[in-house]
Amino acid sequence: MYSVSIIGASGYTGAQLVQLVIQHPKLVLAGTYVSQNSSDAGKGIAELHGNLAHVDATLTPISDAALEEMANGVDFIFLATPHEASHDWMPILSSGKAKVLDLSGAFRLKDTDVFEQFYGFPHTQKQSLAQAVYGLAEWHEAKIASADVIAVPGCYPTASLSALKPLAHNNLLDESVRPVINAVSGVSGAGRKASLTTSYFEVSLQAYGVLGHRHTPEIEAYLGTPVIFTPHLGNFKRGILATVTVKVKAGTTSAQLEQAYTDAYADKPIVRLRKSFPKIDDVAHTPFVDLHWKLDETSGYAVVTAAIDNVMKGAASQAIQCLNIMTKQPVETGLVL
Amino acid sequence: MYSVSIIGASGYTGAQLVQLVIQHPKLVLAGTYVSQNSSDAGKGIAELHGNLAHVDATLTPISDAALEEMANGVDFIFLATPHEASHDWMPILSSGKAKVLDLSGAFRLKDTDVFEQFYGFPHTQKQSLAQAVYGLAEWHEAKIASADVIAVPGCYPTASLSALKPLAHNNLLDESVRPVINAVSGVSGAGRKASLTTSYFEVSLQAYGVLGHRHTPEIEAYLGTPVIFTPHLGNFKRGILATVTVKVKAGTTSAQLEQAYTDAYADKPIVRLRKSFPKIDDVAHTPFVDLHWKLDETSGYAVVTAAIDNVMKGAASQAIQCLNIMTKQPVETGLVL
Amino acid sequence: MYSVSIIGASGYTGAQLVQLVIQHPKLVLAGTYVSQNSSDAGKGIAELHGNLAHVDATLTPISDAALEEMANGVDFIFLATPHEASHDWMPILSSGKAKVLDLSGAFRLKDTDVFEQFYGFPHTQKQSLAQAVYGLAEWHEAKIASADVIAVPGCYPTASLSALKPLAHNNLLDESVRPVINAVSGVSGAGRKASLTTSYFEVSLQAYGVLGHRHTPEIEAYLGTPVIFTPHLGNFKRGILATVTVKVKAGTTSAQLEQAYTDAYADKPIVRLRKSFPKIDDVAHTPFVDLHWKLDETSGYAVVTAAIDNVMKGAASQAIQCLNIMTKQPVETGLVL
Amino acid sequence: MYSVSIIGASGYTGAQLVQLVIQHPKLVLAGTYVSQNSSDAGKGIAELHGNLAHVDATLTPISDAALEEMANGVDFIFLATPHEASHDWMPILSSGKAKVLDLSGAFRLKDTDVFEQFYGFPHTQKQSLAQAVYGLAEWHEAKIASADVIAVPGCYPTASLSALKPLAHNNLLDESVRPVINAVSGVSGAGRKASLTTSYFEVSLQAYGVLGHRHTPEIEAYLGTPVIFTPHLGNFKRGILATVTVKVKAGTTSAQLEQAYTDAYADKPIVRLRKSFPKIDDVAHTPFVDLHWKLDETSGYAVVTAAIDNVMKGAASQAIQCLNIMTKQPVETGLVL
Repeated sequence: MYSVSIIGASGYTGAQLVQLVIQHPKLVLAGTYVSQNSSDAGKGIAELHGNLAHVDATLTPISDAALEEMANGVDFIFLATPHEASHDWMPILSSGKAKVLDLSGAFRLKDTDVFEQFYGFPHTQKQSLAQAVYGLAEWHEAKIASADVIAVPGCYPTASLSALKPLAHNNLLDESVRPVINAVSGVSGAGRKASLTTSYFEVSLQAYGVLGHRHTPEIEAYLGTPVIFTPHLGNFKRGILATVTVKVKAGTTSAQLEQAYTDAYADKPIVRLRKSFPKIDDVAHTPFVDLHWKLDETSGYAVVTAAIDNVMKGAASQAIQCLNIMTKQPVETGLVL
Repeated sequence: MYSVSIIGASGYTGAQLVQLVIQHPKLVLAGTYVSQNSSDAGKGIAELHGNLAHVDATLTPISDAALEEMANGVDFIFLATPHEASHDWMPILSSGKAKVLDLSGAFRLKDTDVFEQFYGFPHTQKQSLAQAVYGLAEWHEAKIASADVIAVPGCYPTASLSALKPLAHNNLLDESVRPVINAVSGVSGAGRKASLTTSYFEVSLQAYGVLGHRHTPEIEAYLGTPVIFTPHLGNFKRGILATVTVKVKAGTTSAQLEQAYTDAYADKPIVRLRKSFPKIDDVAHTPFVDLHWKLDETSGYAVVTAAIDNVMKGAASQAIQCLNIMTKQPVETGLVL
Repeated sequence: MYSVSIIGASGYTGAQLVQLVIQHPKLVLAGTYVSQNSSDAGKGIAELHGNLAHVDATLTPISDAALEEMANGVDFIFLATPHEASHDWMPILSSGKAKVLDLSGAFRLKDTDVFEQFYGFPHTQKQSLAQAVYGLAEWHEAKIASADVIAVPGCYPTASLSALKPLAHNNLLDESVRPVINAVSGVSGAGRKASLTTSYFEVSLQAYGVLGHRHTPEIEAYLGTPVIFTPHLGNFKRGILATVTVKVKAGTTSAQLEQAYTDAYADKPIVRLRKSFPKIDDVAHTPFVDLHWKLDETSGYAVVTAAIDNVMKGAASQAIQCLNIMTKQPVETGLVL
Repeated sequence: MYSVSIIGASGYTGAQLVQLVIQHPKLVLAGTYVSQNSSDAGKGIAELHGNLAHVDATLTPISDAALEEMANGVDFIFLATPHEASHDWMPILSSGKAKVLDLSGAFRLKDTDVFEQFYGFPHTQKQSLAQAVYGLAEWHEAKIASADVIAVPGCYPTASLSALKPLAHNNLLDESVRPVINAVSGVSGAGRKASLTTSYFEVSLQAYGVLGHRHTPEIEAYLGTPVIFTPHLGNFKRGILATVTVKVKAGTTSAQLEQAYTDAYADKPIVRLRKSFPKIDDVAHTPFVDLHWKLDETSGYAVVTAAIDNVMKGAASQAIQCLNIMTKQPVETGLVL
């Protein structure tokens, strides 16, 4: 059994992690923490998240002393914290025996200039950044297996890269035309906080972050080619549907695409290569990535859609996948029941 | 033509009033105001309410001077303001030629003890309170016609009283058993503000204000008998469905109920006596009250449901109905197109 | 390990049963069946239910021979079939070693006159009916443990009885006033079929089956007192919220209600006595019943709300609870992870 | 006053037309019709569409005689009928004084080979087809003004062309890269019929008609350049959001795009050039097209989003716009109140 602490357990991702840790056969929940000045400090998690009404876990305010102690006190630490907190706390947390899985954006971009441009503060944890492995579970398994620090991918990049990497990996993309990624996310992606933007009356399908969202450089860094990424806020709670339009190299056939996707995912239990275009509800509350594509061989344009649950594969369950890899368990342990 | 000013035009009711005034053949919009310290002061209404993107109206911060001037400067003033603001401003606003229609709860309850208990502050505007006429348009037409101050009814009371008054009026209720009102409201009922309670992820059908909601004494005051009222927050934007269960006096027949509803509403264009139980969407974005009922003559229990749009008949369009009555126009003018 | 066959696996309840059987540590899925003339016969369940895209199970058309064989071939048979099919097949299915859990309404009402009135066909399986035990897991544990045939309760009765039985059991209800049950169900309650009534555009909160729904006699039979039950169709996919208004005997205190609910449920892991009124989403995709209540000691009226997932505790997971009881496992096995 | 008959008034578009005709100051509703074998024949429209519960109009079954009579009996005929019916009836309907506005796809594509490929039946009404004017109101005003037969544009093409035509018209598009149109439609787009695909439980954001939807050739025909169009079904009732990604010619500036959109739409009251990206709810239940765009001058990629109500600007209100043009009234008459 491995012991796990979760910092930032008051949010949607944190609460999902609590549930996944509890249901995992090899994990035991050591502690759940929130920031020291959180109004939720001291509350039971059941108070905040009605679906966890049967769970007895208190949201302990985190202190410097607790951070230090945790670094040697548990096997794994999940950070479901703001970028700044993850950035600041990583050196202490990763200084002991504990391995750290960070679900914020603090350690995903290796280029600190790009980081500062998109996240609004300078990155000063160069050593942790060098150490961090990008936890896209189906693509970086070897590196994840031996990592001490994992930068769990963002939700949109997980969906987008799952769709695009088989094509890029097999050198099938016509690089004169940028892949166009249109993605729609459920409101949980905005986090648990009071905001007019995410109030029920206001939410209605809408583009945002157009030509400037911080997940764009993340997708580009791990795909290796520039893209046009347009996120949208959708009127649902969980899930992302990414619709990706690409131009493939002249002469590319459907059989080649089929091969590329099969090679990439046939032995990956979390990716389901579907026979029709998936819907959000197919994957909501699950750890799966559902993929389907169609190519017009004449024009060379292909459309791929990827559906994930943003709180699961886009955050919490992908972190568990990484932990499973790090502990040499089957990647779906505790996830596919 | 009558000139109209709207105070509190930044909220959902205020914005609805703007739209109704603009589309009304006899009204002209003189001004739209918000409180002096509102972060929306100076903005265009189009910025806040995308559906009014074609409307050119600025949200002017209201001042004491402006209040005074308005009292003689326009024909009608709509107050879509917090209870406290309506309470404090009413004497000034009603001191001139303007007639005032208040959409807050400040002037609905004549009993100031009950008011203080449910609204949390003492009522000190006794004269305005004495003057105020409860604007339930189908039931208080004569008084509304000659009123200077209208207390526009609450959303839940409008739905509940529309269903119950024909029965009470005809003395059909078995008073040993309280009417049970279960009502579900769309999120607009909570107003336009950032709140975790009304954030998209959190909203899911739930009872609230159980056995203590401030609309209970309002319903009881204008019905004349105690009720059990249980409001719920529903996962939709606009509308209220009130399901009312009553016991009628022994021997009461369906024909008697039919007569009671027909007598009350046959000549009321805003009330639609339906042939089946109405849904929320039948009335959303409309000024209508849709009613249907069924009686079990054996047991004496009857179920009545009333559907309204809470922002319309539950607020803005009922205010326009009152204005129409006060100006001797057909009650549906500018509402049923 | 126990082997399980599911008849009617193409519907929402059937698909949920498939998932629950797969994730249960002591169950193995022996077969999934549909009616012989179903257009889904021969398809994979993954084709019909995207969330089960990773499940390899074929929908076999059921034949008389298969029914007979199944009766001795497996340990448990789940019937997620129309009332008529359950009624007709029960004698054969229950003639062998297999125990049968029927999720239709065919064996819930012991009074065959009432049955015929509400279900529209005469009940001719008197022996099976006599044999059937009503599977309300928290209340009929002893009888369920030794049963061969279980009539799994309806969704509305499960929510309603969970709320009301502690009060009736402790003789707290004022019987001169009928309990009023207002319940709202998600659309899955209507089953998986093409229908204008349940088409996305048409669904909007609405009462139906007023003063005549077939779950009324079921509630009354197992509560022991008449009720007024008004179901509503809500604009969500899963879940039921039942809001129950009762009058308790004069002098009844909140402490007495507290005791009644604690006595009934303190040791029942599937029932969560909440500290605030539950919402649908607290229980969606879970096996839980969430309960909360409030009493006005002055008037003697109390409001209790019960939230369940209609496909789970209202159908599939309650069937699994029964199976757990029948096999002497903890009742939450395979359900609370 | 002009008299109007509506054929196909039982569907969502037909019902919307009824409402728009009733509220139009210059139109009078002469009749509402359904096909002869419709199960709705003889019913009141109020029975089918709860929001029209106050409207007294019967759905008359249409006969050959009625078609002929109508051609000379009214001023305008709206066809909200299946493609086949519009195709077959057009010669008779357009043989008299009545002008015909067809909301089906029967007369939009001038190329009958393409028509047959996408609509599945051969086009045999060459004369009517030659006569028909494509009713994209902001772009074909002159031709519409003198037309006898209008092919009212499809919903997706209306949104897509509104976004793209200013760019194509000003020759700003880099033609080596196809515009990518991702659009999400509310369920009303699928029409009023029982179908598992549009049942409430099944609807969840999903791509469909990928690389083969019949609106693709319509967009291409009236844009003049090939596109990649991917429609999606969204979990909402009304509205379309089209997100269009284009590459503009090297060196194109934001000022040039601004000019293009202003030139096209500054004097068009139905198009609202927004200051931020619009949401579906900004236009639901309205006749407006809301547009906003952003250009990355470095890469030359621009994103434009267009929001419309599919039942209004995507069908019924655009038909009224055409009628207004044909009768020399301001285009927004009866639409913007």
